[in-house]
Amino acid sequence: MSRLIAVYRVKSDAADIAARARGIATEQSVEMPLEAIDNDFVLSEIVGRVESIEDRGGGSFEVRVSLSAQTIGNDAGQFINMALGNTSMHEAVTLCDVELPDDLAGRFPGPNAGIDGLRARVGAGRRALTCTALKPQGSSVAQLAALAGRCAEGELDYIKDDHGIADQAYSPFAARAEACARAVRKASPRARYVPSLSGSLDRLREQMRLSREAGIDTVMIQPMIMGLSNMQALVQENPDIAFLAHPTMTGGHIAPALLNKLFRLFGADAVIFAGYGGRFGYSKETCREIARGALMPWHGKKSAIPVPAGGMVLERVPELLDFYGRDVMLLIGGSLLLARDNLVAEARAFQKAVESY
Amino acid sequence: MSRLIAVYRVKSDAADIAARARGIATEQSVEMPLEAIDNDFVLSEIVGRVESIEDRGGGSFEVRVSLSAQTIGNDAGQFINMALGNTSMHEAVTLCDVELPDDLAGRFPGPNAGIDGLRARVGAGRRALTCTALKPQGSSVAQLAALAGRCAEGELDYIKDDHGIADQAYSPFAARAEACARAVRKASPRARYVPSLSGSLDRLREQMRLSREAGIDTVMIQPMIMGLSNMQALVQENPDIAFLAHPTMTGGHIAPALLNKLFRLFGADAVIFAGYGGRFGYSKETCREIARGALMPWHGKKSAIPVPAGGMVLERVPELLDFYGRDVMLLIGGSLLLARDNLVAEARAFQKAVESY
Repeated sequence: MSRLIAVYRVKSDAADIAARARGIATEQSVEMPLEAIDNDFVLSEIVGRVESIEDRGGGSFEVRVSLSAQTIGNDAGQFINMALGNTSMHEAVTLCDVELPDDLAGRFPGPNAGIDGLRARVGAGRRALTCTALKPQGSSVAQLAALAGRCAEGELDYIKDDHGIADQAYSPFAARAEACARAVRKASPRARYVPSLSGSLDRLREQMRLSREAGIDTVMIQPMIMGLSNMQALVQENPDIAFLAHPTMTGGHIAPALLNKLFRLFGADAVIFAGYGGRFGYSKETCREIARGALMPWHGKKSAIPVPAGGMVLERVPELLDFYGRDVMLLIGGSLLLARDNLVAEARAFQKAVESY
Repeated sequence: MSRLIAVYRVKSDAADIAARARGIATEQSVEMPLEAIDNDFVLSEIVGRVESIEDRGGGSFEVRVSLSAQTIGNDAGQFINMALGNTSMHEAVTLCDVELPDDLAGRFPGPNAGIDGLRARVGAGRRALTCTALKPQGSSVAQLAALAGRCAEGELDYIKDDHGIADQAYSPFAARAEACARAVRKASPRARYVPSLSGSLDRLREQMRLSREAGIDTVMIQPMIMGLSNMQALVQENPDIAFLAHPTMTGGHIAPALLNKLFRLFGADAVIFAGYGGRFGYSKETCREIARGALMPWHGKKSAIPVPAGGMVLERVPELLDFYGRDVMLLIGGSLLLARDNLVAEARAFQKAVESY
């Protein structure tokens, strides 16, 4: 029966690695001494198997463990539970890749719109896309809507909420979504306002309903906070909506490139990540792998667009496009706002830099 | 207006720590250059403030940042988003404590039953409690129910599903909950079967309904997979149900003791954690802090019972009770099952060791 491969990077003494690998395989499946199991089906199918161990040098090993796809069923939360779950509590182990059988991959939706759908929404042809973030939280609805309108006047493609903007008393979701969407539509026939959704699945659905009422077709979600199962539900019940995935709470024992690939599997049309050279410590190599995982052919799923962010600036546009190519959405947030009264011109300069590249 | 304090442990050069601390305060609040903000309310209330920096030696600093409680509202997901969120992507930072204003703490439910309620359910007086886990996944409903019955015959208090047991084809939730609850009830008037709930909030609610139909009053949840906002919703709409929180996917940039304290705040009656001396690397000091955070007086919330687990064995019962005292639930899983045909006697020995301590 069908199995997935979970690939772990393990720091270990060479003498211990075989036992460590068996320990992971057991922890991520039956979680008990094998000698206490007398069920043949469990022993032959359910127990995790160490498929290979490879010395990567410097006390680091790549361990490939196969797990039964039956343990996962069709639930994204159970996927991460089986692939990483308890092993996330081991300091020296990182889940760095998964290889899926087609039947398991087929149980998850992949992107609704994908990179093509996101380009089509804003009439972008085949060029790279632009994005900015509405900030700071604490601003009133009127202030955020005015800012959104100016960004749209500057011809940017996607104008999203900062991820800290939720449903706070000073800018309630319902009023914000309506006002920002209206301001953006008034300033540009193309641009999209992208509200950040938050809270329980009930609240997410209510915010989705309010977004639809405001004419919104693209939203931002926080997969690691809402829970992957709820992400899967929301994506599947809203096939006409595009979802930008935000990386908040993604730190831990999973490689960023894999996590973003899983976000794509579970329905992200765009994956925002901490771009190299910004406020976070990701390397160029990590960013290259993230972009590759979002874009590469994978079980027939649509491509997601990679969105490097977290301290990007206008001056870096040519360098970033050299690095990522045109299959990218560049997100410049705070540094654009430094232009203050010249924000519209600065946004336009950003858009032109991308369009004319 | 009311503020919470987030306490971070930061590895840094002494020359950089002031800037690092300011960086965290900004990242966790407005996420933009302060010089681009001209809103007085945002500057005075919303921007995170570095309250203190203390050198803890060895290149480690304790940084206390105050954040506006208004940024969180009443949502548990937004709580972790504001307290850790993006900073989880920084390798050298750990969120190690929070200090809450009463009004913010009052927005979250705390435990429904708490330690007293869990003791009362099984008629345990003031003694320590016992728990075991049904394994391995892949077993049929009949096999799991038979195992549950034998554990109850051995007079254990709580008999929970392994956390990998979800709603798989080989042991569907509905049939399993009914059969295991019945087997436990038949063998013991006291013991409780505790099913593991999983999936989206819709599925969690459906499983809660099925659990109630089966006469179940205590369930297990996985807060970091279901999402804290959904945990909060489920706890609040089921005030007569007790919730055991499982630590799957808790690895990352948050101290285990704090995470368990937050689980208590958001409604966990029991917090399962990786006990020292087992399969995971937690120290005695970490375990002591976890137990303290679960039990200590805190904003009028009920106490949660700490549940050390992950490789505990019968021989260690006296040592564990010496260490934790009687306010603990001891969980012995896999090693109990090694007794095979003597499982009932082994369970009884475990129960007696705890009761007679």
